[in-house]
Amino acid sequence: MNGLLVMQSDFGLSDGAVSAMCGVVLSVDDKLRIYHLTHDIPPFDTFEASYRLMQAVPFWPEGTVFVTVVDPGVGSSRKNIVAKTKRGQYIVTPDNGSLSHISRAVGIESVRVISERIGRRQNSEQSYTFLGRDLFSYTAALLASGKVSYEEIGEEMDLRELVLFAGLHPEITETRIQGVIETLDVRFGSLWTNISRKDFHTLNVHDGEDLDVSVYNGRTRVYHSFVPFQRTFADVEIGEPLLYINSLDYVGLALNQGNFSKAYNIGTRKPWYIVLERIPKSKQPE
Amino acid sequence: MNGLLVMQSDFGLSDGAVSAMCGVVLSVDDKLRIYHLTHDIPPFDTFEASYRLMQAVPFWPEGTVFVTVVDPGVGSSRKNIVAKTKRGQYIVTPDNGSLSHISRAVGIESVRVISERIGRRQNSEQSYTFLGRDLFSYTAALLASGKVSYEEIGEEMDLRELVLFAGLHPEITETRIQGVIETLDVRFGSLWTNISRKDFHTLNVHDGEDLDVSVYNGRTRVYHSFVPFQRTFADVEIGEPLLYINSLDYVGLALNQGNFSKAYNIGTRKPWYIVLERIPKSKQPE
Amino acid sequence: MNGLLVMQSDFGLSDGAVSAMCGVVLSVDDKLRIYHLTHDIPPFDTFEASYRLMQAVPFWPEGTVFVTVVDPGVGSSRKNIVAKTKRGQYIVTPDNGSLSHISRAVGIESVRVISERIGRRQNSEQSYTFLGRDLFSYTAALLASGKVSYEEIGEEMDLRELVLFAGLHPEITETRIQGVIETLDVRFGSLWTNISRKDFHTLNVHDGEDLDVSVYNGRTRVYHSFVPFQRTFADVEIGEPLLYINSLDYVGLALNQGNFSKAYNIGTRKPWYIVLERIPKSKQPE
Repeated sequence: MNGLLVMQSDFGLSDGAVSAMCGVVLSVDDKLRIYHLTHDIPPFDTFEASYRLMQAVPFWPEGTVFVTVVDPGVGSSRKNIVAKTKRGQYIVTPDNGSLSHISRAVGIESVRVISERIGRRQNSEQSYTFLGRDLFSYTAALLASGKVSYEEIGEEMDLRELVLFAGLHPEITETRIQGVIETLDVRFGSLWTNISRKDFHTLNVHDGEDLDVSVYNGRTRVYHSFVPFQRTFADVEIGEPLLYINSLDYVGLALNQGNFSKAYNIGTRKPWYIVLERIPKSKQPE
Repeated sequence: MNGLLVMQSDFGLSDGAVSAMCGVVLSVDDKLRIYHLTHDIPPFDTFEASYRLMQAVPFWPEGTVFVTVVDPGVGSSRKNIVAKTKRGQYIVTPDNGSLSHISRAVGIESVRVISERIGRRQNSEQSYTFLGRDLFSYTAALLASGKVSYEEIGEEMDLRELVLFAGLHPEITETRIQGVIETLDVRFGSLWTNISRKDFHTLNVHDGEDLDVSVYNGRTRVYHSFVPFQRTFADVEIGEPLLYINSLDYVGLALNQGNFSKAYNIGTRKPWYIVLERIPKSKQPE
Repeated sequence: MNGLLVMQSDFGLSDGAVSAMCGVVLSVDDKLRIYHLTHDIPPFDTFEASYRLMQAVPFWPEGTVFVTVVDPGVGSSRKNIVAKTKRGQYIVTPDNGSLSHISRAVGIESVRVISERIGRRQNSEQSYTFLGRDLFSYTAALLASGKVSYEEIGEEMDLRELVLFAGLHPEITETRIQGVIETLDVRFGSLWTNISRKDFHTLNVHDGEDLDVSVYNGRTRVYHSFVPFQRTFADVEIGEPLLYINSLDYVGLALNQGNFSKAYNIGTRKPWYIVLERIPKSKQPE
């Protein structure tokens, strides 16, 4: 453990909830250093929680403890767990899909179910609605401070029982890839797909080559154009589209200094999807 | 003092004001560890500032120093003060009501008026509009770093002179409680009242029992229904209402995974109020 | 170096980008203490990035390292640089105007161009779109941790080559100053001009004296009134206008507890400007 603890939630920062969690953590050990991933996950959006973990966790050192609280099922029977990633970070979370993208991108080594006897904050037994403060953050602090070891948190759980989202991988043929628009580069409106660099390169596309790109809303095609594959935005003119490998090593679709999502009114996840096709040599622009 | 300093304001985080305050604090002692409560208090809303302190302060360790700057009267004659809570936290604030809820929930042990000679940042004598940076944060840093003791900050003030909001307690009879909707659980829209767990249990309600619940906007009743008292959201179906004890130990009114405030277009504080009544046995649903 | 690192960007805090940067910094040295200026700079708004640096940097101790990433030209030929201010703070930034206001307010001592060999994060050679994470934050961490000295970052650059915005100074005559509305006090709507306290006092205005104030949108005058120069908001009635010296030592125009910008629908920068004129004694109100 390195004393670093990183928080994520759908609580926003407009009230005192996140600060109460910080207080609980620092009451366990005031030398812990708390950072934040985001607290702007849309309420109850466990898919987004999962995606944002993938965007940050891999860049943090081994021994960092994450706590993520997006928990539509608070008080229900879903499990409270701690996962250890294959790179040695820890994630304290309800078991509701939040580990899906980390599982795809980094891999989960093992998962333990939090024992209420260990992970419950003292004098919080009468509190049923804020497990983020009374159990998840408290457990994360115990772990990050070394006061309780990962092994002592609770029983190991069968990895096959972990709740994971379906449909995380694209469909690939020799000349065509159909993928999901998993999220947006929020501020800039670029579409971020689930087509990895490795998947993409099965098409044998070279830098600067045009692809036939379609975006569908269910059965309706809402965007169709030839778009070049480029290394970075500045490789096309301002306002022009490009395909590129984004900062998470997946294919993105963007307008240089524009907002692709707003320009074509495009959303994410079902029923939206994207299709990339190689253009036969005969049809390629000269 | 434990070296922890927590900031709250109505400045937002879109400009450099909060960061300037952090710089001032760390110029006093760069080993202080700064955290934030919220900077999204609506401009000039001292009641909200008071409420949010109650939501966070009690969960922080003894010796933590808070600084809260929501100050419609900057430059007027209202006092600049430091309060010590009954749990040993310190709060640096203008004397404008911000200590009301902490006073109710935790209790104030004593209050001192900040001496300008001690608490004014050097070379800021020509600056009259940003006391958050030039006096409040600076004073908080002196205190948190131990460079100035609480006793040295300034003269003790008579607690009876402290500015407190009126109407913080509900009206209680044997079968009926009339309370105030003090705030919303912002992201989720639940109504948070000023009816404490202790107040509520004077009605002798058991888990699962229906109450007769009304919400009024002045004289107009805008919500009226039988609502069960439950321990947590998952005890009712998705979309159904419940009364529950919230994370601050007060009665809340919510829709499970819904937004009560938006659903019925309900606001907070005057002229809004809530009435809970026990249902006579003869009228209870079977 | 004091181990403090302060981040600014136009990334927002709704996704994982800023947290990924924090992870990169703490992977270099997990004892660095990261703070944030703002991540709410409007996308690609390098002028605003420059302004916000002026608002915060001067209040931080010598040896603090800032990293600011507002970078419409990512991947283009604009330089990646580190500047040292005349007060001994460091700023890691693309060379796109972001140092303009600090240059005016504090002064730049020297600038170095970041060597890709030094400042590039390992294994990020295939990543072209997120220099904030792969180069700027990484370089800032090397510098703040003392692992690489300022001199080792790269070659010194001629200060005359630094990209700076034009029009940063007002036009001054004996009785009239024409200035730019550089930004708003966001939450409160006050207009913040580029007329410094020193510039203003060339008019020899005394406290409480009325000035003839006009605000123009191009050729159209959208506000014209006599407004008193006061020390602070409480010196006028609630809702009344005042001219004052703001917390950055420039002239501001505000409504006490009101929002000047919203009240008169006034924007910032070109084509907006403000004119202050001394009122001849014969025309002054009694």
